Amino acid sequence: MSGLTYRHQRVQRLRRLLGRRSARREEGRFVIEGLNLLEEAVSSGAGVEAVYVDADWATGAPARAVGGEEDAPWGLAPGEDGPQRQQRLAALLARCYDMGTRVFELERGVLARVAGTVSPQPVMAVVEVPACSVADVGTGRPSLVVVCVDVRDPGNAGTVVRSAWAAGADAVLCADGTVDVWNPKAVRASAGAVLHVPVVAGGPAPELLAMVARWGMRRLGAVSTGGRDYATVDLVPPCAFVLGNEASGLPLAEVGDQLDELVTVPMPGGAESLNVGMAAAVLCFEAARQRRLGR
Amino acid sequence: MSGLTYRHQRVQRLRRLLGRRSARREEGRFVIEGLNLLEEAVSSGAGVEAVYVDADWATGAPARAVGGEEDAPWGLAPGEDGPQRQQRLAALLARCYDMGTRVFELERGVLARVAGTVSPQPVMAVVEVPACSVADVGTGRPSLVVVCVDVRDPGNAGTVVRSAWAAGADAVLCADGTVDVWNPKAVRASAGAVLHVPVVAGGPAPELLAMVARWGMRRLGAVSTGGRDYATVDLVPPCAFVLGNEASGLPLAEVGDQLDELVTVPMPGGAESLNVGMAAAVLCFEAARQRRLGR
Repeated sequence: MSGLTYRHQRVQRLRRLLGRRSARREEGRFVIEGLNLLEEAVSSGAGVEAVYVDADWATGAPARAVGGEEDAPWGLAPGEDGPQRQQRLAALLARCYDMGTRVFELERGVLARVAGTVSPQPVMAVVEVPACSVADVGTGRPSLVVVCVDVRDPGNAGTVVRSAWAAGADAVLCADGTVDVWNPKAVRASAGAVLHVPVVAGGPAPELLAMVARWGMRRLGAVSTGGRDYATVDLVPPCAFVLGNEASGLPLAEVGDQLDELVTVPMPGGAESLNVGMAAAVLCFEAARQRRLGR
Repeated sequence: MSGLTYRHQRVQRLRRLLGRRSARREEGRFVIEGLNLLEEAVSSGAGVEAVYVDADWATGAPARAVGGEEDAPWGLAPGEDGPQRQQRLAALLARCYDMGTRVFELERGVLARVAGTVSPQPVMAVVEVPACSVADVGTGRPSLVVVCVDVRDPGNAGTVVRSAWAAGADAVLCADGTVDVWNPKAVRASAGAVLHVPVVAGGPAPELLAMVARWGMRRLGAVSTGGRDYATVDLVPPCAFVLGNEASGLPLAEVGDQLDELVTVPMPGGAESLNVGMAAAVLCFEAARQRRLGR
């Protein structure tokens, strides 16, 4: 491994995949950042194409804090020191070599500049976007899915995927207008859940919802006020939670005909709305609760 | 208003309040970013001491995108254009002037550099940290509180506060070791909830939890595995959810004696854990559900 500089074409590609949806779509690849996500990708059998490591870190230099005061240096886990992390990295890189994955060492600081985040990670990897279509999801006879309509914030989209996975949803379907979940912020917010639950771009929202109905699922549109109390709805039969834009909600003029019911999470505290990630968590775990314990 | 430069002492103070917990504690002030939060601060009656506006924006220059492709330029709401936002800003600044709040215009780009975020906001304000003590919370006979023990990620801490507020919790208590919720990332993640629900630094976790017990609250420690199914616990009587570190969980050796029961959110999807923000949402909304609809 020799240090690759900021202008090297491999680094440029990394930047493109991080920054451009079009590049991700064209190549069918996305970027994961950090040791935890890389470990998750390797153990979940995701197609890890190439790994990039900061030279500083790869060669055993002490971990350096890059972010603000509260950021753990290099994202160390609590109780973990630099050398321990380095052992984890070394073990992981060994596995990558075994699998035939290429590993590139980047000059000190290059990854940090490429990442453009406050707390850059010392390792990144280019990973294949898992191949899954809307039809594949339907074939699997799903009993719980989340449909995103115009979810714009990548952090929210990532949290939706994380909630959906944790609560046992079968898939997350993203209608046109929703942010790319392979965006680095979304991948980060998903904490790797994008590697586990199928996430599928599904075309225009009305067509997507019509298809979900043909799968025999009840389509429940989440609205911040005026819908039925979500906890009074029978969520045991197959159902799809349909989540809208964080600021303007669901575009009911466009998708209202394709919803079977509107549901609302009552908020006794007086907040105006939950973010869509939290709404997804509350709704999906209520479905999981009803299915586990009955209504 | 004349443009203040990056080196001006007011700007330096803004940077200190954004970056240093010690500065926030010393001054009893924190910084909010963005038009939405400022509107919320003004209408909630928070003590807004001073407002800082980007000159570019204040003088009507077109909104410019600063972040990645998916970031809305200057955080515009969907369907909102630059001039509409400017009208909102103008109306808000007029209210600030009426209240006697000082408004400073900063040279173009200064706020962006001060913020250090990918999507800087064109307006910031210095706001008083609401005065509230642990004793104040106890006097209010709380029926639902969230206790944070070693929550380290500011985004998670903010989401905990947001969840707690939305679900109607009476307070969020932060034991020593938890990140400062007046940190700009936490304030941002809370979406202004820190202005609404009392958030109190509470000293060492064992003492804090002992006090919560004296208030007659059942203390439920959230653990990722091995606890009782949260949805089978009677959450109608006064209770406190105790949340631990995102990576290592609750320090049971330290606080185990001060917990009445351990609870777990079962995750059928196979995820290892929820982030603490999501856990707070799921737990608090289950308490709200039981209180609204019965067990």
